Amino acid sequence: MDSVLAEILTIADELLRTEKESPRAPKIRAEDMALGFDLSLPATGKSEAEVLDLLRQVVKRTPKTSGRRFFNQLFAGRAPMATAGEMLASLLNSSMYTYKVGGPNILLEWELSKKMCSCAGFKDGDGTFLPGGSLANLVGMVLGRNRALPGFREKGAQGKRLTMYVSTNGHYSVRKNAGLIGIGRENCIDVAVDENGRMDPAALQRQIERDLKEGALPAVVIATSGTTVRGSFDSIPDLADICQKFGLWLHIDGAVGGTLLLHPQYRDFLTGSERADSLTWDAHKMMGIPLTCSALLVKDPEILFDSFKEVADYLFQADSDHLNPGNRSIQCGRRNDALKLWTAWQRLGDEGWAQRIEKQMSLSRYAAKRISQHPKLVLCEQPSFITVGFYVPGKSSAEICEQLHVSGEAVIGYGDYGEHQAIRLVTMNPEVSEAEIDALLEAAVATAAALPAAAVTST
Amino acid sequence: MDSVLAEILTIADELLRTEKESPRAPKIRAEDMALGFDLSLPATGKSEAEVLDLLRQVVKRTPKTSGRRFFNQLFAGRAPMATAGEMLASLLNSSMYTYKVGGPNILLEWELSKKMCSCAGFKDGDGTFLPGGSLANLVGMVLGRNRALPGFREKGAQGKRLTMYVSTNGHYSVRKNAGLIGIGRENCIDVAVDENGRMDPAALQRQIERDLKEGALPAVVIATSGTTVRGSFDSIPDLADICQKFGLWLHIDGAVGGTLLLHPQYRDFLTGSERADSLTWDAHKMMGIPLTCSALLVKDPEILFDSFKEVADYLFQADSDHLNPGNRSIQCGRRNDALKLWTAWQRLGDEGWAQRIEKQMSLSRYAAKRISQHPKLVLCEQPSFITVGFYVPGKSSAEICEQLHVSGEAVIGYGDYGEHQAIRLVTMNPEVSEAEIDALLEAAVATAAALPAAAVTST
Repeated sequence: MDSVLAEILTIADELLRTEKESPRAPKIRAEDMALGFDLSLPATGKSEAEVLDLLRQVVKRTPKTSGRRFFNQLFAGRAPMATAGEMLASLLNSSMYTYKVGGPNILLEWELSKKMCSCAGFKDGDGTFLPGGSLANLVGMVLGRNRALPGFREKGAQGKRLTMYVSTNGHYSVRKNAGLIGIGRENCIDVAVDENGRMDPAALQRQIERDLKEGALPAVVIATSGTTVRGSFDSIPDLADICQKFGLWLHIDGAVGGTLLLHPQYRDFLTGSERADSLTWDAHKMMGIPLTCSALLVKDPEILFDSFKEVADYLFQADSDHLNPGNRSIQCGRRNDALKLWTAWQRLGDEGWAQRIEKQMSLSRYAAKRISQHPKLVLCEQPSFITVGFYVPGKSSAEICEQLHVSGEAVIGYGDYGEHQAIRLVTMNPEVSEAEIDALLEAAVATAAALPAAAVTST
Repeated sequence: MDSVLAEILTIADELLRTEKESPRAPKIRAEDMALGFDLSLPATGKSEAEVLDLLRQVVKRTPKTSGRRFFNQLFAGRAPMATAGEMLASLLNSSMYTYKVGGPNILLEWELSKKMCSCAGFKDGDGTFLPGGSLANLVGMVLGRNRALPGFREKGAQGKRLTMYVSTNGHYSVRKNAGLIGIGRENCIDVAVDENGRMDPAALQRQIERDLKEGALPAVVIATSGTTVRGSFDSIPDLADICQKFGLWLHIDGAVGGTLLLHPQYRDFLTGSERADSLTWDAHKMMGIPLTCSALLVKDPEILFDSFKEVADYLFQADSDHLNPGNRSIQCGRRNDALKLWTAWQRLGDEGWAQRIEKQMSLSRYAAKRISQHPKLVLCEQPSFITVGFYVPGKSSAEICEQLHVSGEAVIGYGDYGEHQAIRLVTMNPEVSEAEIDALLEAAVATAAALPAAAVTST
């Protein structure tokens, strides 16, 4: 084992060096990926050296999500020491259902929950960590479902039609979850947004009133703090007023934007969060924690137990309920996603997170400025967050993205900004320099110049 | 970063040495855990050296699930090189929704799905990897729910009462999932078991007929391949006959037992698996892959798309649907749990897995033999799998387990075997020697001798 670990360190060093020195990585087509190395599973095992060679191939060919030309996603880069904590968590291989098995990792997960609840204004709140924002949203929706119709967990819908509400710019997991938890995708209702991409509170209220009139049971509003494409933040106070008036559960999908609660000024984007019932906050997005690390925070600490507790005598045998988070999780065996976040927090402190956010936000402002000054580029809107939409008039944004990927200049995607399909630059990785933003923009312009005029650039 | 990685290697080496040389680890009470080191999250970041010191403390105090005195759980130990693959996956930080981001890891996940489907007899099947067996069971149950009432995903239950069936010895996640997916916990019906802990097919048929008469819509049978405590395997052919007769979905919860499909003889425990519709198989249990690594395999490859596909233009922009597994997952961002399993499979090959299983099974037979020969111990039943129940007459099994933990002799739990609450020895880690099994049994006897007679030892 020791010798393997030493080899892994060598592979890791090589990866980090490549990321730093040659961030460009041309696309490898799926049909070419396996050329020269065999991915299939053997009947007879290979030697350590042979397997290490295979791992070198996989590492070499894997897209570098921490490279400085990766602008594609709402995650990128690495928070200092987070990966170190993650590697040790892999080796310790704790399951986070009981204190008996998880030991100090259960306690440090608590510290994270408490701190994040305190940021959200959930004074006596609690949290549960989940593998991804989609599942964190699912838990928030289940909690609201169960509160709206208390027998739902035991008996199902009992003939009632529950409805949930999310803006047209909200994340697709909300609709998917409605299908999973027995609400029905049709009963997850899209609410119109204003010109800034924020849910229109008047439209929400009208929709709730209409559904009530039709005999439905409106149950949950999902406010989005940081929409996926445009980075919009719904007005939480406005939605909280409506939820209060009609008795609905308010869940905030802050998968990407929740992190702003760690910044003294930008936390205002989530003003009113203390009025919500639950909040999704992904630490693997803006905080640079290795995938996945999602918190679902709740104001009422009992509600997680009420919704997920089961009798499992074989498992919950020692220590108090609170020390056994398996009692309030949708999982049984659960990976230790806490240690990596805790490690990075020790290194950065609250102040370090604020600086990281500052850098991410300033990079998007820089990109917007450069785009708006550029004669060949059009900025879709002033970004208030960390996604920047722009396009090259007369050229297909989708095609530019594809060609940038093929040439290895950048990994970047596109999205709908109003009537335009635009290149969507995510300024997620704070290691990216302003010069690299400039280089990306020039590469996009040069790539566009080589493309034929597009028949349609609008959506 | 390089210097941190080197330090992590040192911590890892120390951990592996301690595990090997001093596998005993006395229990640390929660109230004593934080003595001498501060778990709280600082406002100002600490130095690299300070954080590394904290990590050393956490590692030192974390229960050693790969230590040779850990018999507590249905996971333990490490498959060769799996942790190496896991550490690289952490560093690569791929998200497994698209080929654009995941690259070769998407392809090697395919290889795993194909191979595992082939073991199960799902000739043209497909798979999806999930963070844990509970969620894999959830997916199997959702698929069956949607087939039983095709509009469920879109509209919910529409006034119908769907029912699902699992044996009284099945895993608690099945009931929990019934509450999550809108079926209702009450509609997840416990079916009696025979004296070997296997679901009684006649009882199942009677229950289905009763529910039909009452107007319910029987939807899914969950067969358990390896129950949590006694390690029983339901008879798949008998349950498949009933499912066929009444048109029910057959899901196999093979979270622990699915691995036997890799052994030329023991695969007979799952005879008939090809008649099931879906199968849960945790590679983090018998295969020794770091948590979590669960596969949900399906016979019909289209059904995952049908149940989970959503429109997400911002995400699914390149390559074919099949190269973008986010289209058939309940998650969006998803950790790369494939590389670690693929790495171990390269090292071991099919043959290596079979040898590993052989060792796990022979250890349980050895333990049973030693217990039945021991004048002070009673064996509950001949184990057919890798859990061995035994007790010390007149003494509390729960108290013996607690004292073994306190003294550091072993981490082990108890469970119900018929009328006895028994110590439940799991022979999961193939690194455990027969001498260590002997030492555990002697420690249990010595610990029991020091305890007062228990008022009640039966359940």
